[in-house]
Amino acid sequence: MKEVCAIIRMNKINATKEALVQAGFSAFTAMRVSGRGKRTVNYEVLQAMNRNPDVQPEVLATLSQGPRLMAKRMITLLVPDRRVADAVDVLIKTNQTGTPGDGKVFVCPVLEIMRIRTGETNEDAIDEMAGGEGAEHV
Amino acid sequence: MKEVCAIIRMNKINATKEALVQAGFSAFTAMRVSGRGKRTVNYEVLQAMNRNPDVQPEVLATLSQGPRLMAKRMITLLVPDRRVADAVDVLIKTNQTGTPGDGKVFVCPVLEIMRIRTGETNEDAIDEMAGGEGAEHV
Amino acid sequence: MKEVCAIIRMNKINATKEALVQAGFSAFTAMRVSGRGKRTVNYEVLQAMNRNPDVQPEVLATLSQGPRLMAKRMITLLVPDRRVADAVDVLIKTNQTGTPGDGKVFVCPVLEIMRIRTGETNEDAIDEMAGGEGAEHV
Repeated sequence: MKEVCAIIRMNKINATKEALVQAGFSAFTAMRVSGRGKRTVNYEVLQAMNRNPDVQPEVLATLSQGPRLMAKRMITLLVPDRRVADAVDVLIKTNQTGTPGDGKVFVCPVLEIMRIRTGETNEDAIDEMAGGEGAEHV
Repeated sequence: MKEVCAIIRMNKINATKEALVQAGFSAFTAMRVSGRGKRTVNYEVLQAMNRNPDVQPEVLATLSQGPRLMAKRMITLLVPDRRVADAVDVLIKTNQTGTPGDGKVFVCPVLEIMRIRTGETNEDAIDEMAGGEGAEHV
Repeated sequence: MKEVCAIIRMNKINATKEALVQAGFSAFTAMRVSGRGKRTVNYEVLQAMNRNPDVQPEVLATLSQGPRLMAKRMITLLVPDRRVADAVDVLIKTNQTGTPGDGKVFVCPVLEIMRIRTGETNEDAIDEMAGGEGAEHV
């Protein structure tokens, strides 16, 4: 089994949720995260400005925020090995706008999964939907 | 070392915290997450309804939320290999109500752990309590 | 590739962000988490107090909160293998105050990384800055 994680734009969560369900991935976990944005600061310039009494405090305050953190969503899916490529594919297709900030997908190893309700393990513990069948809760 | 993760019901966080301390697991991290709920939607029906001018917008809005995201808690524990089974056991026993939505436990490999304060590594960096001893901070 | 995670104090997020950028780590993800604090409770004492009618309810309520959860930040970096030691070093140096609660750093294996915008994989998908170059978005 693998854990497939994606860091995506906030406004893509619903489309991603629907695309995953359509592709038969019935369970996932989402969390609010912040990601580093594009703006960078030259810290040597910033330090030089700090030593300059003529620089307005507000300018320094803005600059020293450094690269901004942007609100993002992180999604985590537990999937059987044979479904990893499908999950990655759905996540990329649904979230690719072509502009910076589309996010990343990464895959991590998982050694063991258990469904708390039943004690089922590994693939049996992972919810998968076939066609129109009802999905199981996490 | 392993990372033992559990996605559990919101109202189980205190019982889980107490059960973990009782079992000697003195440190863990918790975060608010959302998990896919049970409701599923037939997207073909939804699209057909979208093309039907007689369908009320509110009905569509409700349906197109698709499977609801439910508030859950995710817990992460860093544990030595010999304690993984105990940690999983405590998490399952404390969170098993037998109704859908009890959540999942999964175990991931960890290559290296360091305690920032002391630079201690691996098992020495993991807080473990014996009996009534005071626990270390994360 | 590896995932380098750190659980740090809330008030260290900006210093950590700046130190990471200075060291050439241009992208990371941060999330709000709660960590187990230092306070522990002897549950046998607590249960005995529960059976004692003279104990004020507020005292019990306070005690039974057990070890407090403290607000922390968790940071996640995706880094190429040759940069793991540097990332760990920056995280420890920036967050080490020497008092309990400084947090932990841990390293997990990652099997595959993809940048959603371009489909680039693995090391090409990881943002790295050389000197004053602009950083890529996540």
